[in-house]
Amino acid sequence: MTIPDKMKALLLVDDGYSTERSDARLDSMAAYVHLGEIDVPKPGPSQVLLKVSLASINPSDVMFVKGLYGQPRHRGQPAGFEGVGIVAAAGDSPEAQRLVGQRVAFATGLSNWGSWAEYAIAEAAVCIPVIDSVKDADAAAMIVNPLTALAMFGIVREEGEKAFLLTAGASQLCKLMMGVARDEGYRPIAIVRRDDQIEMLKQAGAAHVLNETAPDFSQKLQEVMRAEQPRIFLDAVTGPLAGQIFNAMPKGARWIVYGRLDTATTPIPEPGQLIFMRKRIEGFWLTEWMRKSSLETKIATIREAQMRFADGRWATDINAVVPLEDAIAMVPAEHAKPNGKVFIRP
Amino acid sequence: MTIPDKMKALLLVDDGYSTERSDARLDSMAAYVHLGEIDVPKPGPSQVLLKVSLASINPSDVMFVKGLYGQPRHRGQPAGFEGVGIVAAAGDSPEAQRLVGQRVAFATGLSNWGSWAEYAIAEAAVCIPVIDSVKDADAAAMIVNPLTALAMFGIVREEGEKAFLLTAGASQLCKLMMGVARDEGYRPIAIVRRDDQIEMLKQAGAAHVLNETAPDFSQKLQEVMRAEQPRIFLDAVTGPLAGQIFNAMPKGARWIVYGRLDTATTPIPEPGQLIFMRKRIEGFWLTEWMRKSSLETKIATIREAQMRFADGRWATDINAVVPLEDAIAMVPAEHAKPNGKVFIRP
Repeated sequence: MTIPDKMKALLLVDDGYSTERSDARLDSMAAYVHLGEIDVPKPGPSQVLLKVSLASINPSDVMFVKGLYGQPRHRGQPAGFEGVGIVAAAGDSPEAQRLVGQRVAFATGLSNWGSWAEYAIAEAAVCIPVIDSVKDADAAAMIVNPLTALAMFGIVREEGEKAFLLTAGASQLCKLMMGVARDEGYRPIAIVRRDDQIEMLKQAGAAHVLNETAPDFSQKLQEVMRAEQPRIFLDAVTGPLAGQIFNAMPKGARWIVYGRLDTATTPIPEPGQLIFMRKRIEGFWLTEWMRKSSLETKIATIREAQMRFADGRWATDINAVVPLEDAIAMVPAEHAKPNGKVFIRP
Repeated sequence: MTIPDKMKALLLVDDGYSTERSDARLDSMAAYVHLGEIDVPKPGPSQVLLKVSLASINPSDVMFVKGLYGQPRHRGQPAGFEGVGIVAAAGDSPEAQRLVGQRVAFATGLSNWGSWAEYAIAEAAVCIPVIDSVKDADAAAMIVNPLTALAMFGIVREEGEKAFLLTAGASQLCKLMMGVARDEGYRPIAIVRRDDQIEMLKQAGAAHVLNETAPDFSQKLQEVMRAEQPRIFLDAVTGPLAGQIFNAMPKGARWIVYGRLDTATTPIPEPGQLIFMRKRIEGFWLTEWMRKSSLETKIATIREAQMRFADGRWATDINAVVPLEDAIAMVPAEHAKPNGKVFIRP
């Protein structure tokens, strides 16, 4: 494979972190990245250079380009945490060399050279060779969401209660999680904002779907709490809605925040519940989970994700595939549509 | 000892729980208890009947009579979780019989027959014989606050960081905790509301004392956080101040709520910190700690508390001792004064 000297990429406009509050909506691409031409990067000894076939856009990417994710931005470097591509070159290590010419799903969280580009750099350790039957769109979204889904469902499993709550229930992530949950006899309770998502999510594995905008939402929430006694609340939204849900949960409830779609103030409605009902509030971050999990856990989790895509139990819903050159103009509108993912094709 | 048939007591006005928000201030006694005459209760087999010498008023009593503590009220029964008295009669069990005639510190959380009365009932297992050198006021406040102090300081010890934060720093509980902390080389950071508490708390063991009402409070808070990197925040206040403190804390911070002096909405200023900084929010309740701790831990903790009072390392600051008959009229004003405790003498 001939590798050019220069490449097109979506490059970060700012350095470090932002101090402005924001959420995972993508009002604009131009405020955070610009289309530019830079040198094709060289892989380090344990890294590979990828010819990117398809790059995904996750909520974590949006928070990252805004400077609100837990790692700093580097101005002028490509954004994008995840993608699928062909290994075009590799560093000297045998692990890297072994991947040359293969089609792999990759993540760039460790290399900091993003996937929204013609070429990307990834550590060989976070490249997963994919079999031909796995589609590009599934491979490009095989790491961040699926690992988050399986890792968070692991928390539910450990807690032992069959019922659990999810906000932003129509997200790709939640749909993946609910599929696994139903297969194992768990009872996901999904909170959504639109009636037309209710049937879709029941098919995806939800035991209950509540529309938070319905006039009888509070009453239905109470009924579901009484009937199902969920103890884990996986929350991508925060804000007053999340506070209300936590408040209605039974003794021993755990509110686990992993995203922030609502930037309104997040209240703890009754702090006395922390004292007398053993409730608690914590967070989940995939990076932290990766850091503290054993290698065996990670390998088993990645293998389960790949098998689910290969045999069709999991599939990625696609809203749009946008060419790299058109991404700044086209992505915001496509990203605002519900129920599916947006990809960038270099 | 001759035991009368009837006794005077402060009796609960309401049943069960309240749904009104309130705090640990005692605006009125008459709203929650009334002075009445009832039959002297009979101890069960494992219980003792106490001729009460002195009964204490703790924040937990205030929350309980208001119906905001984690156990239900029973209308017409005496309030009061703690006191000191002479064992006037006992049930048939040898543990109970052994205590007859002794002066004991007692807690009524298990018997539900309170100490704000001429006679009270307690389980023999939560009666601690006290030596003559321990004053009544120390004995009457030997269980709830001291055990809470030692149990919560145990959380600090387990976490391993020397610095930790306390709100309501001038409370009896915090003063007890800070004394233990200093003895073991820990560095308490106390948050108070008055400048005249600063010197007193430094003498009580605080490494830093910050006045939350000072104009440079936010700046001083930042400085102390940078210098001391506290990881545990023991919070009796909640509300916006507590949110601000938690927000300024470093990675891995734990906000442990054990009281609620501020009924304003408690915000989580930056929920992203739960995700990216491994921060979490939980509660502490002595009843729960008692339930889950081993007998050895409880005995060792009670022994340490008694030794600290006996040898003078701990002492109870007294605001007032109010006769039972005058309690409804006099307690609210005495209870509103800072820095010391109020006792009821039947």
